[in-house]
Amino acid sequence: MEIIRPSTLPGFLELLPEDQVRFNKIKNLIEDTFIKYGFLPVDTPAIERSEILLAKGGGETTKQIYFIEREDKDMALRFDLTVPLARYVAEHYNELNFPFRRYHIAKVYRGERNQRGRFREFYQCDIDIIGDEFLSSHNDAEIPATMYEIFTKLNLSSIRFHVSNRKILVGLLEDLAVEDTEAIIRTIDKVKKVQADRFKELLMEDIEDDSVADRIINFINYKGSNQEILSYISTFDSKNALYKEGVEDLNDLYRDMIALGINDNSIAIDLSITRGLDYYTGSVFETFIQDHEDIGSIASGGRYDDLASNYTSKKLPGVGMSIGLSRLFFQLKDANMLEDTFTPPIKTMVLPMVEDYSLAYEILDSLRNNGIVSMAYVEEGKFKKKLRYADRLKIPFVLILGENEIQTKKVSLKNMVTGKQELLELDEAIDIIKKS
Amino acid sequence: MEIIRPSTLPGFLELLPEDQVRFNKIKNLIEDTFIKYGFLPVDTPAIERSEILLAKGGGETTKQIYFIEREDKDMALRFDLTVPLARYVAEHYNELNFPFRRYHIAKVYRGERNQRGRFREFYQCDIDIIGDEFLSSHNDAEIPATMYEIFTKLNLSSIRFHVSNRKILVGLLEDLAVEDTEAIIRTIDKVKKVQADRFKELLMEDIEDDSVADRIINFINYKGSNQEILSYISTFDSKNALYKEGVEDLNDLYRDMIALGINDNSIAIDLSITRGLDYYTGSVFETFIQDHEDIGSIASGGRYDDLASNYTSKKLPGVGMSIGLSRLFFQLKDANMLEDTFTPPIKTMVLPMVEDYSLAYEILDSLRNNGIVSMAYVEEGKFKKKLRYADRLKIPFVLILGENEIQTKKVSLKNMVTGKQELLELDEAIDIIKKS
Repeated sequence: MEIIRPSTLPGFLELLPEDQVRFNKIKNLIEDTFIKYGFLPVDTPAIERSEILLAKGGGETTKQIYFIEREDKDMALRFDLTVPLARYVAEHYNELNFPFRRYHIAKVYRGERNQRGRFREFYQCDIDIIGDEFLSSHNDAEIPATMYEIFTKLNLSSIRFHVSNRKILVGLLEDLAVEDTEAIIRTIDKVKKVQADRFKELLMEDIEDDSVADRIINFINYKGSNQEILSYISTFDSKNALYKEGVEDLNDLYRDMIALGINDNSIAIDLSITRGLDYYTGSVFETFIQDHEDIGSIASGGRYDDLASNYTSKKLPGVGMSIGLSRLFFQLKDANMLEDTFTPPIKTMVLPMVEDYSLAYEILDSLRNNGIVSMAYVEEGKFKKKLRYADRLKIPFVLILGENEIQTKKVSLKNMVTGKQELLELDEAIDIIKKS
Repeated sequence: MEIIRPSTLPGFLELLPEDQVRFNKIKNLIEDTFIKYGFLPVDTPAIERSEILLAKGGGETTKQIYFIEREDKDMALRFDLTVPLARYVAEHYNELNFPFRRYHIAKVYRGERNQRGRFREFYQCDIDIIGDEFLSSHNDAEIPATMYEIFTKLNLSSIRFHVSNRKILVGLLEDLAVEDTEAIIRTIDKVKKVQADRFKELLMEDIEDDSVADRIINFINYKGSNQEILSYISTFDSKNALYKEGVEDLNDLYRDMIALGINDNSIAIDLSITRGLDYYTGSVFETFIQDHEDIGSIASGGRYDDLASNYTSKKLPGVGMSIGLSRLFFQLKDANMLEDTFTPPIKTMVLPMVEDYSLAYEILDSLRNNGIVSMAYVEEGKFKKKLRYADRLKIPFVLILGENEIQTKKVSLKNMVTGKQELLELDEAIDIIKKS
């Protein structure tokens, strides 16, 4: 038979079981926290009508869409979870309760250029709160609060939410009477990635007056404690209504985040945060790991006015954030931050040394009834080889059943870490395993 | 703006949040049980190289493959989890430990004809144990034992595993010197779906001698207790080595299944079970719900000699079973068997009636720190409307914070089921919610 080389496609992440256990632990923690914070599950098909995915028109992401081979090109794989959410909420509008709090953890697909740490299939973990016509800005803090619990539990206690409100910057730019607000905001989005000189050059592409550029640079680079920045923007002289609204919303957001238990050290009010996308209209969030800023934002999002204008005439404002889990996992592993996160899922291996496996299987059943994750090794072979199997899977206990054990109605429990082996009653063995 | 009708593609399952909660509960139960029984997680890309998916050649399923639009047609969506498993094990052979016990719960894709209860995207939940060159037949019972715990916990206590060993039938047919064994086995696979007369007609298409057909019919229809059927096949006169091996394996399987805690009532040794696919070579399993046999087998599988012969020269025998979860969910819902399975995920809604939300958010944070799934309703509107929101989401408790509560440093806890409302210390309220 002709043999086909077994391989995955380039740019597709696939893990070995030990890393998969680590990955799933993080994924489950994210899901459990989303649930704990009152978000409801949604699971949409990975394949959508092409016209749904293309509704927004042009842009980098739509160029990367994987279409399903059909004469009419009418099916394609989703490239994010936001478009499916918009379609879902528009389609099921009458059956949903607003504010609609939903989480969605699933794979998305982008035919990106092959790059280290960039994947063509990757998990996104999204939460959003969607309102019907209105949505109180007091919902905004719930989003980073949920993420805060996740990152704290992941021992990423050094994370910091960089938050701002886009109205502030738009208001300021209106005050300064610059022309192409959107272009300038997209430039400001790059401030963390380029040198100061280069940044000013970029800014001057859309601004004529040098002093205006300097005012923007001074504003977005204003440093101080959160309270100091809030004071600065409050006293800053602006008659712009949008600016004032933004300042008020940012004050509320900060107060709400603190009330929801986020440590002040984990919040950085940062006037340079804009999120490039036109989409955002209020609060904006990015999340950096301190001393690992090179990793980039590990969870981003914000407030938007109108989720689903392509699919419904209803106005559906919302707020949300997204974790790109596959990329985050890759980066944490790359930075050696996942080393201590593996817990062997299998706790006990039952090893029958006699022909009749009935007793071994009865014992295996008892172990499981006691909540102990267990398996039996029933292959032929040398004793050493069998123990090596347990060793390689990092199974901490082997329960041996030979003639001697059967005659004495006991079991031999071998601790694979210490090497200690004891002849015990089954109940005693179960107690030891449970307490370990 | 032009509005695009928001809709999913035909044949794609999408659930509203309440059903999604039910669905996820089942999916999580399946995953937790797979883990408890010592299976390790695998998560392969949904997109594989086309040549991997097409390696087996022709067949119904390969006709249903969704290809990704590319000039060279080199990418496509998986149609099951077995081909990806074969590719995974062949690709990572040197890094895996055998027997390799893996579970995989994921979506697969088939461009099937649109039919009620058949989906083009559906979840499969697979467990397999893969050996390196050899795999003891004593592993086989682990597979239905795992499924047994799942179905018992799903309150499908009336399920019954129909089990046989394909060697028995192949040996019998060799004994009877019929020609096209595979064709006859495929016919026998249909015995539960057609009338007796029609079944004999089908059988006679590949058999010349009427009495041979009758011997087969009598054999596969032999009824009795499990012990009686095992006696019948043991005393049945055959010198065929394969037949004898099959009888021995089936005896072992039955004994192991009982030792692993499966109730004898939930096992039906059934000589008519063959599983149509050529693939299977030993134990074969189907699972029926008693009094709901019309639903068909809800979990099927068996033993195979060679998992990955298309991708490696290593011989990799295995045993496994699969649940088609999307279809099962649809069928259980259709048969009104899911009605009592909804538990509202959100336990408490905090309802601030004052402008300052800080206290409400501190209380919300306390509830969550006590493990209570909670959210705050912070929209404008009438009190009645707010309570209706909790009511529609079936949230059992609403914690009201008005001027009175703030002044007395208490909270009002409204039980949404009984309607009772009490002014309490926060700790008292938390106790009541936790105990409910």
